[in-house]
Amino acid sequence: MNFMPLSKNHQKWIRRLHQKKYRQEEKAFIAEGRNALEAATRMNLHSVKEIVIDKNHEGFIEKYFSHHRISYNESIYTCSKKEMESISTEETPQGVLLICDRTELSFEKLEEKSDTTLVYMEKISDPGNLGTIMRTAAWFGIKQIILGPLCVDPFNTKVVRSTAGAIFSMEIYCSVNPERLFQFAQKKRYTMIAAIPEGGTPINLWRKKRKNIIMLGHETDGLSGEIIEKADQRISIPGHGSVESLNMAIAAAIILHEIAGK
Amino acid sequence: MNFMPLSKNHQKWIRRLHQKKYRQEEKAFIAEGRNALEAATRMNLHSVKEIVIDKNHEGFIEKYFSHHRISYNESIYTCSKKEMESISTEETPQGVLLICDRTELSFEKLEEKSDTTLVYMEKISDPGNLGTIMRTAAWFGIKQIILGPLCVDPFNTKVVRSTAGAIFSMEIYCSVNPERLFQFAQKKRYTMIAAIPEGGTPINLWRKKRKNIIMLGHETDGLSGEIIEKADQRISIPGHGSVESLNMAIAAAIILHEIAGK
Repeated sequence: MNFMPLSKNHQKWIRRLHQKKYRQEEKAFIAEGRNALEAATRMNLHSVKEIVIDKNHEGFIEKYFSHHRISYNESIYTCSKKEMESISTEETPQGVLLICDRTELSFEKLEEKSDTTLVYMEKISDPGNLGTIMRTAAWFGIKQIILGPLCVDPFNTKVVRSTAGAIFSMEIYCSVNPERLFQFAQKKRYTMIAAIPEGGTPINLWRKKRKNIIMLGHETDGLSGEIIEKADQRISIPGHGSVESLNMAIAAAIILHEIAGK
Repeated sequence: MNFMPLSKNHQKWIRRLHQKKYRQEEKAFIAEGRNALEAATRMNLHSVKEIVIDKNHEGFIEKYFSHHRISYNESIYTCSKKEMESISTEETPQGVLLICDRTELSFEKLEEKSDTTLVYMEKISDPGNLGTIMRTAAWFGIKQIILGPLCVDPFNTKVVRSTAGAIFSMEIYCSVNPERLFQFAQKKRYTMIAAIPEGGTPINLWRKKRKNIIMLGHETDGLSGEIIEKADQRISIPGHGSVESLNMAIAAAIILHEIAGK
């Protein structure tokens, strides 16, 4: 394998990718750790542009590529542990950092070929929640998610980490406003399902339709009134306990389990 | 209301409660924010020993108690914003901090009176996961949880925060080893259900028994082999996607929904 030292300028460029603005400009994002490497090389949605490892991981990376019989013709950059700490997005860097192509798909592409279950997130603001929901969606076989214009950046490093690799298998359609989504749903005969905290059809009594778009709202504000009103159906998770609400990612998981998992 | 200044020594004592050792010694824990105040005064499992507010919250606290017609005869301590930052466990303190009685119940008490659904967590290590699971359990009406000796401290400040108030409604039985749990289950005729990542009965095909103990394992290691073997039933969440596993708190939520929520 071809190991190259990581220059200071290169390090600076990587640190810039911690910020949304530069991730968008450079059409790139950072993923870290062995699991990310495994997911990124197994799936091919966002291709790996660069691999950076600290000196301790040279043996690991050689073994990894020969064992999995993956060819990787680009250079692999090496740096010191201290330099890795300066470019890593994690408190305790794992020693393996990837720069990947940020592949955002245009909504037209979804119109050509869409699956039977889609998830629309209007305005998720917590990166951990978005990542966890993507991971859960991937577990239940969902391959396409649609994000509203006010969602946190799906290539935010905390999102990427929480997806546990799912980011590499998920088609992401960004900045889709509700109007456009409803037009699409009507044309393609999707049932639009709004998840609301209470007052909707209890999820366990809800009867699955053939083609569904599950719509999830903001952590505290929920879905906008317009979406709730225009939705074909409204669902809720029945509870009878002593807390006011479920965590957002938890509620999403129960809904995904009922709609996509069965 | 009687407002008292918070002395330096008192601040030092509160900061000590950030540590497990002192929480155990002092039989106390910290909860923060208006929601915690609301939950703590509405339920009475862990009584409020002290309330500390920053100067900006004097009006709020007077209104709160008069509006809810709650009598609180202890002193309320006030401090500066800076002092609040020094005693708070949060990055952005909310200005309201409670010191509560850490009420741990002895397992004998559970033997006297136990509900039909119990949750046993053998070795959860992430505070956010434990807190989120407690919040979800509370949502589904579960009031008693049992923790193994290797679990993270349930009165850890991150756990308390993640419970979103559920800590105040949940009977917690700590340091219960598996042998003791199985003896109890046999005597009280509980069905012992081990949640395992794969190979168990698919949770949606599983048929609910009258009295159940749901057993959850460690985030990466799962349940110990001994527990899995001795369990009456083993359940898993079917998935067919591209990720290796579900987040621990997510898996727990889907199981709780199927077993306690329906």
